[in-house]
Amino acid sequence: MGNEFPLSDLAVRIGARVVGDGDAVVSGIAPIEEAGPGQVTFLANPKYLRFARESNAAAIIAREVVSGGRTNFLLADNPYFAFACAVEAFHPTGRLAPGVSDRAAVDPSARVGKGVTVSPFVSVGEGAEIGDNTVLFPGVSVGKGVIIGADCLIYPNVVIYHGTRVGSRVILHAGCVIGSDGFGFAPTPEGYRKIPQVGTVEIEDDVEIGANTTIDRATLGVTRVCRGTKLDNLVQVAHNVVIGSGTVIAAQAGISGSTRIGSRVMIGGQAGLAGHLEVEDGIMLGAKCGVPDSLRASDSRVWSGIPAMPHPTWLRMASLLPKLPELFRRVKRLEEGKNPKGEK
Amino acid sequence: MGNEFPLSDLAVRIGARVVGDGDAVVSGIAPIEEAGPGQVTFLANPKYLRFARESNAAAIIAREVVSGGRTNFLLADNPYFAFACAVEAFHPTGRLAPGVSDRAAVDPSARVGKGVTVSPFVSVGEGAEIGDNTVLFPGVSVGKGVIIGADCLIYPNVVIYHGTRVGSRVILHAGCVIGSDGFGFAPTPEGYRKIPQVGTVEIEDDVEIGANTTIDRATLGVTRVCRGTKLDNLVQVAHNVVIGSGTVIAAQAGISGSTRIGSRVMIGGQAGLAGHLEVEDGIMLGAKCGVPDSLRASDSRVWSGIPAMPHPTWLRMASLLPKLPELFRRVKRLEEGKNPKGEK
Amino acid sequence: MGNEFPLSDLAVRIGARVVGDGDAVVSGIAPIEEAGPGQVTFLANPKYLRFARESNAAAIIAREVVSGGRTNFLLADNPYFAFACAVEAFHPTGRLAPGVSDRAAVDPSARVGKGVTVSPFVSVGEGAEIGDNTVLFPGVSVGKGVIIGADCLIYPNVVIYHGTRVGSRVILHAGCVIGSDGFGFAPTPEGYRKIPQVGTVEIEDDVEIGANTTIDRATLGVTRVCRGTKLDNLVQVAHNVVIGSGTVIAAQAGISGSTRIGSRVMIGGQAGLAGHLEVEDGIMLGAKCGVPDSLRASDSRVWSGIPAMPHPTWLRMASLLPKLPELFRRVKRLEEGKNPKGEK
Repeated sequence: MGNEFPLSDLAVRIGARVVGDGDAVVSGIAPIEEAGPGQVTFLANPKYLRFARESNAAAIIAREVVSGGRTNFLLADNPYFAFACAVEAFHPTGRLAPGVSDRAAVDPSARVGKGVTVSPFVSVGEGAEIGDNTVLFPGVSVGKGVIIGADCLIYPNVVIYHGTRVGSRVILHAGCVIGSDGFGFAPTPEGYRKIPQVGTVEIEDDVEIGANTTIDRATLGVTRVCRGTKLDNLVQVAHNVVIGSGTVIAAQAGISGSTRIGSRVMIGGQAGLAGHLEVEDGIMLGAKCGVPDSLRASDSRVWSGIPAMPHPTWLRMASLLPKLPELFRRVKRLEEGKNPKGEK
Repeated sequence: MGNEFPLSDLAVRIGARVVGDGDAVVSGIAPIEEAGPGQVTFLANPKYLRFARESNAAAIIAREVVSGGRTNFLLADNPYFAFACAVEAFHPTGRLAPGVSDRAAVDPSARVGKGVTVSPFVSVGEGAEIGDNTVLFPGVSVGKGVIIGADCLIYPNVVIYHGTRVGSRVILHAGCVIGSDGFGFAPTPEGYRKIPQVGTVEIEDDVEIGANTTIDRATLGVTRVCRGTKLDNLVQVAHNVVIGSGTVIAAQAGISGSTRIGSRVMIGGQAGLAGHLEVEDGIMLGAKCGVPDSLRASDSRVWSGIPAMPHPTWLRMASLLPKLPELFRRVKRLEEGKNPKGEK
Repeated sequence: MGNEFPLSDLAVRIGARVVGDGDAVVSGIAPIEEAGPGQVTFLANPKYLRFARESNAAAIIAREVVSGGRTNFLLADNPYFAFACAVEAFHPTGRLAPGVSDRAAVDPSARVGKGVTVSPFVSVGEGAEIGDNTVLFPGVSVGKGVIIGADCLIYPNVVIYHGTRVGSRVILHAGCVIGSDGFGFAPTPEGYRKIPQVGTVEIEDDVEIGANTTIDRATLGVTRVCRGTKLDNLVQVAHNVVIGSGTVIAAQAGISGSTRIGSRVMIGGQAGLAGHLEVEDGIMLGAKCGVPDSLRASDSRVWSGIPAMPHPTWLRMASLLPKLPELFRRVKRLEEGKNPKGEK
């Protein structure tokens, strides 16, 4: 905070073009309904056009000049990306000082890279490896043989079970659990017998995982989250699931065992997928949908509902559900030989 | 425990009126199906009238005398409230001894109030402030610049990210995470670019938040939970959400980004709300409902279903769903020119 | 790892019968699509028959010989159970060394059994008892008066509130919370008044509880999870719930207050149950179902849908939902006096 730029400098940093006064000085960034003089804001959602017109902000990041607007503009093809860069310009990342706290418990056989922060109350198990510049916040538990790459942020109280591999530039939010046992039991006359879960988990580079999300280790083999995929909070990923790269999963969604999610898939909040399915690349799943079968992009790119159906079908179906009582009455009248049109 | 009162004393403490023997001594409180001699119980749900009639408890807290009951009564306009007071009377709150454990890691720049308990393995970051008489249980992580009010209970392993503000008399249950990054990414040809989440969270006075619930910080600005609101376990509150005062949210519900929930709203378990919505004051949302649009109290006070519809409509619709196969058959017969009534 | 057996020895260990070469040496176990020479695999799901036929594995655990298969077989009546035993044979359980870390905080009044592991950053409260050979991983918080049996595994950052009882051979996965306050508030004109939650939780022998699952203490009395029951990750169990023995609950399911679940019940992922219900022994609930009323096995063994209905009804209903728009059109035509069959 405290950074200040002429608009023309900011434009260079965020890959935008100034329309208006490039010498105007900007010192902060704020949402469009709140931004005032000296602040930059951005317009991504047309819903907020009204605010853009009335804004006294120093500049608005947008795709094109808003007609009726009375301020400067920073035009970018991808305004949301330019916004991300602007936020970074005004909020350079702080970080914890590197070093291993004498209140941490690091096994002597563990290897800790250069510039690593090991906070108080962190435990690092036998043979674990922590890559350069990775930050372990307080209370993180790193199991035996875990390998973590460079430049990761592991927030407080994250638990990484033994044998898990985590790539570089991975962000794990507080309380998430990686590598807990998969849910597998063999029924026997004497009750359930636990199937030992002896596989592992691999989290590839540039993945971000939300707070209190849980990812189970494989029974045998690997549960995998591929490069650049982002999981929100409280998501459940069961044993032996594979999630492709560049996929986004919203909060409280759940994926059952051995299901394979493609790349660039988008899964809405509270969606649920049965086990042993395949969801092809690029598919979008609506919030709260329930997926009992594998989904092909050639059948539909977007799916919604319980059970999941192509989104356009779901939209029509959903709009008719409240009219179901009326439909039952209409059919009853037809059965009684009445002409409902004539009666109304 | 171990407290004993004559019924007349207990009546004064809980704001009730004795019908029966005020000198009867009571020494504990129990559920209506279990309460025996010397114990007080309460009747809030008419479903349990049968137990009230047969009860041997020393007294029953209720709105009115139960006809056929054979015991004493403590009558109150708000029996559930009187019950709450009675539980307190028999179970005075213990608390951990105040003091800062030498196994905690408190930054020298942090300010810790009078009578505060800082348990072992608690970390308190640079510039944080902990108000008087607040209790931090073991393993709590308080980030840089966090401000916590007085008389709070922060249970084990809670994580409060940097910059969060927590009011007074707030209860945070174990494992909840306040202030994790909102889920925001700008798509680019090279994959998702993280939008830095530089806003914060404010939890106002008298809020209670359940175990393992997650509340994300705002992208810019503030995610806010207003005074007296209660969240159950495993709830997800996304970035920039605002929840009014006196609102109650049951377990596993989820609220997407920038949605504004009014005051005195009640949200059922596993309900889900899309982003950028408004839910007006006093609205009730049924368990498991899915809310894609803003809701006005003038349209309906109670909403249910996926997508959410007025509750009376949903009740009729839901009762007809299992009859849908039959309806298809009936329509087919009509199309075939058969008179189904005549055939049956 | 590194264990090797002739097939005939392995057969004895897992209670199976060799068909083929009992002298073949096996040194590992792998999924059926990956297993190669020297490895054992298993066939439980007929979906994978193809892989069984083509497999080069040293042996396949199965119920019967797969026709067309070219390898050895280990035949067992319960192949999944035999598989569990085989996994154990190849992966003998390691464990942390016993002992109480000098970085743990164990109250002097607590009793710690023989062979117990108390890891760094574990806190054990006043009067708590830890049974023989139980392992407490780093960051576990054991409240005042908690009693834990023998041979338990309590993974990192688990929180067990005061007064909870945990049986023997219980496994609690990372981040789960046992004994947090039930969600109970009495509405008053001044806002909600907390009902003190003075009951407790009992977890019986041989229970396993998933990562970040939450189980609330009773208001009065006990929240109970009976012997041999298994809960997956992120499950919510509210106050005063009773779950019978040998029951299985998949991830993200939620059970509201005072509901009683029978024994040998199976509950699918993301299912939700209202409060004060009874679900009889042996009932199965489909994923994502919503249960508003008590369920009797005599009405149906399997229930699905929102609201829950007998599974066969749900299957028919669900297959017709996408055809609802068409049904509305068909009824309209009938009302208009058109004969749809004739027109097509």
